[in-house]
Amino acid sequence: MVQTFKFSNASTDFYFNSSFNQLKNITDKRSAIIVTDENVFNAHKNKFKGYNCIVLKPGEEFKIQSTVDSVIETLIKMQADRKSVLIGVGGGVITDLTGYVASVYMRGISFGFIPTSILALVDASIGGKNGIDVGLYKNLVGIIRQPSFILHDVSLLHSLPQGQWENGFAEIIKHACIKDATMFKQLQNTSLQDYLKKKNLLTELIKRNALIKIRVVQKDEFEKGDRRLLNFGHTLGHAIETQYEVLHGQAISIGITYACHISEQLSGFNKTEQVINLLEQYNLPTYAAFNRKKVFEVLRMDKKRIKKEMNFVLLQNIGKGVVQPVELKKLEKIIYSLNI
Amino acid sequence: MVQTFKFSNASTDFYFNSSFNQLKNITDKRSAIIVTDENVFNAHKNKFKGYNCIVLKPGEEFKIQSTVDSVIETLIKMQADRKSVLIGVGGGVITDLTGYVASVYMRGISFGFIPTSILALVDASIGGKNGIDVGLYKNLVGIIRQPSFILHDVSLLHSLPQGQWENGFAEIIKHACIKDATMFKQLQNTSLQDYLKKKNLLTELIKRNALIKIRVVQKDEFEKGDRRLLNFGHTLGHAIETQYEVLHGQAISIGITYACHISEQLSGFNKTEQVINLLEQYNLPTYAAFNRKKVFEVLRMDKKRIKKEMNFVLLQNIGKGVVQPVELKKLEKIIYSLNI
Repeated sequence: MVQTFKFSNASTDFYFNSSFNQLKNITDKRSAIIVTDENVFNAHKNKFKGYNCIVLKPGEEFKIQSTVDSVIETLIKMQADRKSVLIGVGGGVITDLTGYVASVYMRGISFGFIPTSILALVDASIGGKNGIDVGLYKNLVGIIRQPSFILHDVSLLHSLPQGQWENGFAEIIKHACIKDATMFKQLQNTSLQDYLKKKNLLTELIKRNALIKIRVVQKDEFEKGDRRLLNFGHTLGHAIETQYEVLHGQAISIGITYACHISEQLSGFNKTEQVINLLEQYNLPTYAAFNRKKVFEVLRMDKKRIKKEMNFVLLQNIGKGVVQPVELKKLEKIIYSLNI
Repeated sequence: MVQTFKFSNASTDFYFNSSFNQLKNITDKRSAIIVTDENVFNAHKNKFKGYNCIVLKPGEEFKIQSTVDSVIETLIKMQADRKSVLIGVGGGVITDLTGYVASVYMRGISFGFIPTSILALVDASIGGKNGIDVGLYKNLVGIIRQPSFILHDVSLLHSLPQGQWENGFAEIIKHACIKDATMFKQLQNTSLQDYLKKKNLLTELIKRNALIKIRVVQKDEFEKGDRRLLNFGHTLGHAIETQYEVLHGQAISIGITYACHISEQLSGFNKTEQVINLLEQYNLPTYAAFNRKKVFEVLRMDKKRIKKEMNFVLLQNIGKGVVQPVELKKLEKIIYSLNI
């Protein structure tokens, strides 16, 4: 069943709890061009039969302009035109990159996503933020444009390595922290194994998180207000991610940990321990040593910085995030002073 | 005086018949970053004093991704943030490229234009089409996003080489052909020298043409209908431009010539001679030998192609253009058969 959600300039059809096989009913096979990576392609070869496919090397290190260039060259060779539809089948790297290419090829063609990781299902595929990394700076180049459709098929998760499950739960815990105290409790009372074993439990959790993200984006697509909340844990997280060999979710988990401590000082938050315990319950790292100087150099180029201030996301309570401008110098001082 | 024109998602402030010096009243000098080329920079050095400037090599051959990459690197070094405003000062290459970079840097920052060529004043700077060329394919990559402002200062035209004047008049004659029979007559009764000598005559003509383009774009920003008319002469023109060393206006003029002859066959147009005479009156080339096979190969990748058809712009009368889908094969046949 399809549910359509309107955004400011476009709408997206969501096929929750659906199946890859439905794709042929959504787009004409002759117009469809699938963009995926080698891991996903090899794990689900049968599903791709009869589709035009562009298969990329896997990994965030390929979410860069030279990959965009090569996809565009392939589209030219395939004689892709304005009626072609790009379909990103993969994790966040694939959806970010596919959406970006589709947004600029011939000044914009249609695109849709079939996310194959928890992280992409609950977060990366939703909200229209597309783009690539430039050097150390994550998502420095990109645009906001909504996909025509997003199709959920949780059976695709079977090929997901264990670490990638936890990776996705970092964003789920983030949603709970900023918006959903009830889900926070539910996560406390459930285990990763439960979600792995019980398909209903998992599809419910994915849909609940997708809806949280959809509603935030609907209210504030261009990130002037509420959408900034979704950056909880991401300011420091992104900076750590570019400096160390960690997964996005791991970096975000460390970012959340620090953001809780910073919240204690700036907004009187007093439930850091509960958040830390939940992150650890889902095998996510919390306290980590990092080179503060290096991380701060990257943080200075964060898109959320305006001159000498940074819009930083704090918690007031579990389920209640707030955005507050903090001077870079002050932020630096707090982070250096945290003896954790 | 500023006139604001609304488009679907944004509006643009037009400062007709204004002066470069007004720029400081439009944007904060500290947020402004000017993008220009060596020719324009050297011709107007004094005007740029006190501004952050990115100076590019001049020419269409640099309207490519590697230039975009280098501008983005410079923006990072300058610590440009979301409050930065890019200002493209130059011809169509500079405005296309500046608008594109601004549209993707940090997922979109503000931008404005100060066009320094007739062509950019009456056409290229208006309507939000930004982008770059890919190999032989003009504007294959880009997006549609409106500038915050466009400032006209015709005194900047003094440094324009003669060939560039005629280049711009090709688009003016195009506007007359598709939309404005009165202006067509006016152009017949005036000479290029008149426009060169009389500033009032020139600023009136520029404003009239800017308004034609603005109104077409307002009605149909995303080119589903009327905006396609602006492609009159451009289908063949673009294909010729990528194959031969000619200016855009010269290629368009040849494209207009052929489009008139094609109109004779497909829409009963019977004033080809008047159009040819006007183009020649403004020193523009009309009949030109070109390698039809090579040009057709490029034409096949035109963004206006959908599968085996092409939306082609024909004239029914002077001042009355129409869009008609034409099969590629038919188009090819007519072009090969034209003994001109």
